[in-house]
Amino acid sequence: MTDTHMPPALRFMLAARRSELAGLEGLAQTCELVTSISQLVHALQRERGYSNVYLGCMHPRHLTQLDALSTEARTVEHQVVTLFQRIDLDANTAPDRARLFNRLAFVMHGLDELPGLRRRIRDQRATAVEATAALTRLIGGLLAVVFEAADTAVDPQITRVLVALFNFMQGKELAGQERAAGVAGFSAGFFDATLRARIEHLAHGQERCFQTFVEFGEDAAVQAWRAQQASETTTQVTRLRGVALKTSETDRVDSTLSDMWFELATVRIDAMRAVETRLAEVLLQHCQVSIRQARADLDNHRTLLNRLVSLKTAGCMDQAVLFNVQAVELDSPPPDGLGHHVGRSVLDMLQTQTQRLLSAHDERDEARKALNERKVVERAKRRLMDEFQLSENDAYERLRVSAMDRGQRMVDVAQALLDRVAQRTNRR
Amino acid sequence: MTDTHMPPALRFMLAARRSELAGLEGLAQTCELVTSISQLVHALQRERGYSNVYLGCMHPRHLTQLDALSTEARTVEHQVVTLFQRIDLDANTAPDRARLFNRLAFVMHGLDELPGLRRRIRDQRATAVEATAALTRLIGGLLAVVFEAADTAVDPQITRVLVALFNFMQGKELAGQERAAGVAGFSAGFFDATLRARIEHLAHGQERCFQTFVEFGEDAAVQAWRAQQASETTTQVTRLRGVALKTSETDRVDSTLSDMWFELATVRIDAMRAVETRLAEVLLQHCQVSIRQARADLDNHRTLLNRLVSLKTAGCMDQAVLFNVQAVELDSPPPDGLGHHVGRSVLDMLQTQTQRLLSAHDERDEARKALNERKVVERAKRRLMDEFQLSENDAYERLRVSAMDRGQRMVDVAQALLDRVAQRTNRR
Repeated sequence: MTDTHMPPALRFMLAARRSELAGLEGLAQTCELVTSISQLVHALQRERGYSNVYLGCMHPRHLTQLDALSTEARTVEHQVVTLFQRIDLDANTAPDRARLFNRLAFVMHGLDELPGLRRRIRDQRATAVEATAALTRLIGGLLAVVFEAADTAVDPQITRVLVALFNFMQGKELAGQERAAGVAGFSAGFFDATLRARIEHLAHGQERCFQTFVEFGEDAAVQAWRAQQASETTTQVTRLRGVALKTSETDRVDSTLSDMWFELATVRIDAMRAVETRLAEVLLQHCQVSIRQARADLDNHRTLLNRLVSLKTAGCMDQAVLFNVQAVELDSPPPDGLGHHVGRSVLDMLQTQTQRLLSAHDERDEARKALNERKVVERAKRRLMDEFQLSENDAYERLRVSAMDRGQRMVDVAQALLDRVAQRTNRR
Repeated sequence: MTDTHMPPALRFMLAARRSELAGLEGLAQTCELVTSISQLVHALQRERGYSNVYLGCMHPRHLTQLDALSTEARTVEHQVVTLFQRIDLDANTAPDRARLFNRLAFVMHGLDELPGLRRRIRDQRATAVEATAALTRLIGGLLAVVFEAADTAVDPQITRVLVALFNFMQGKELAGQERAAGVAGFSAGFFDATLRARIEHLAHGQERCFQTFVEFGEDAAVQAWRAQQASETTTQVTRLRGVALKTSETDRVDSTLSDMWFELATVRIDAMRAVETRLAEVLLQHCQVSIRQARADLDNHRTLLNRLVSLKTAGCMDQAVLFNVQAVELDSPPPDGLGHHVGRSVLDMLQTQTQRLLSAHDERDEARKALNERKVVERAKRRLMDEFQLSENDAYERLRVSAMDRGQRMVDVAQALLDRVAQRTNRR
């Protein structure tokens, strides 16, 4: 029997299940995209690092290395773009997709400029600062896609993994930025106050990101991360960071430390990739399991409902008993035990489904809370952009600098700003 | 030019707009449903009130009145079911629909039992308590649909109106339950401790609901409500409530007060309907305006993008300048002012769209917070159901009674319960 012959209550119950399944299938596509994006971010981080090295010394040996990394990045880029293009934009108009599509538009826009940027780097028409800025913006755009994916995922378990992955990627990106800042300082032989503050800011940022990752990450990924944290490389990076923070214009270090710092930071960052790969695997597994489960549930559901409906059609029970447990409660007991039992089971199915949907929703919201920090910063940034007609970058910088000046976390500065605005609005 | 010939970044930007529009169109359908549901709830509340009156005295005059109300309710029921059936369940698999569909399944299930219930009332095979319980459950199911609509709406302004409408409907439903409790007490000549506590609980509940309504409601609706609050009817209802709360087994009142109470409470509740109608109008207007706006934006967007693309095709600018503002920034200035200007405008459009989407998202979340109280209660209820194997009703009763015993609000009791569970989980 097709769904259309079912009583309306049951048709809606099945439609709810189908919506869930459709949500999971859309999510699986997004997760595939995210996995591929994490690969691209890693490739671009490596390319960014060596672009800086090359632009710093222009040695042909570094150009060979850079070329190899660019080729690698282009291959992943191609995979990502292929996945983008596979999204059927006409069929895919679920309302929760608007923010994701908008982020993808940004990324496409950024990817379009990569060939030109690579040319300018090789022609030495871009400075290290410019090249870094362009690649950092693109990486930021890619991270924003992962963020939206985490913030719109329908499944609680998958949300947890995406929250873990986003935070890990964010932490790794801060490690990449710290590597660049460290190269700048060590090459100069010392870190001035601004650069020292930046290093501290980036180190604390990493700490918070990795904490959230540990809270939400899957066990094997977290263990791999803990092993890395206890490794000799990390110890050495931490030691060099300590050295950096003790330098000043009058208290310099040998500028050859720059190479050592770069090498160690690179080994550390490359090792982090293994954790991301593990999270991507877990993501894939969760998607597969959830979809398989949802499909099986839908089939079971349909089978059970059809059986019930055919019992009714065969005249075993009257509709009131079958589809209305409330009628069952109010009426005298039904003539046989079956009627009551079956009538209950329909309402039970409905109630179980409602409870399950609501619990999943709660759990998902709980996991999403870990994304709030970024949201608060974004909100404060928008507020500054509106109020002072700032660009996005300038607004971010203002927040960052004022956090550094006060020795506070960016999220606290952002929250204080939003609170002040709210107070002002209330006072009016 | 069709979208498919556009550069990918722009195609994604348009797809984001289309998703937004699709979301609004889905929402408009939901709002139509909600409007119709508010009418049905009102009709069922009236039918419930007179069912009680009829089951109380069995006077033929009351039967005529009840028949008229049942006919009225059936007409609205038919409208609601027609709207339900108009939803294309196969095309409508947006993931955010799962909870809504599930609630609709509940309602359909409840509507199926109405004919039987009406028969039993007339045959005097249902008691007043049973009839009230069945109709209250159905009304609760209908309110849950409005709740889900408010909790899943994509537009911040429409979310606000839905939050206002849900709270108003909830408050009105509590007023209906208070009417029934009052009839029971006044008919008996006094209110025992339990009944007094129930009246107080229902009065406080109304207060909180109407407060939230005032916070989120549109001006004209709020003014209409304030006028009602200041009316002679409300004054009298409040006075009678005071009388009720002072009665006890040893301190009785004339049982004919029951009729007066019923009449006054009914006039008050019927007047409330005007506020709902006003909110429904505002809802419709918002939907129309938002959709018109989103369509116009999409058209403008497409026109502008096409113009840009054709400029490019005509060879006026090279693609890097047109679609990459970052390239513009890093390159030497473009040959003419136009290139730079147009290049900027594409990125500006993208950034404006992102900021708009994020702001809308924040505003919407802000409005949704007003729904948290109910969510906390639901969550605590589910927890009790799981832990003690209670039915939904029993879990709700346990919360309600323990709130009454402690003289606390239900949401505070619920939150305390959830906090204890969380502590216990953390301790493990």
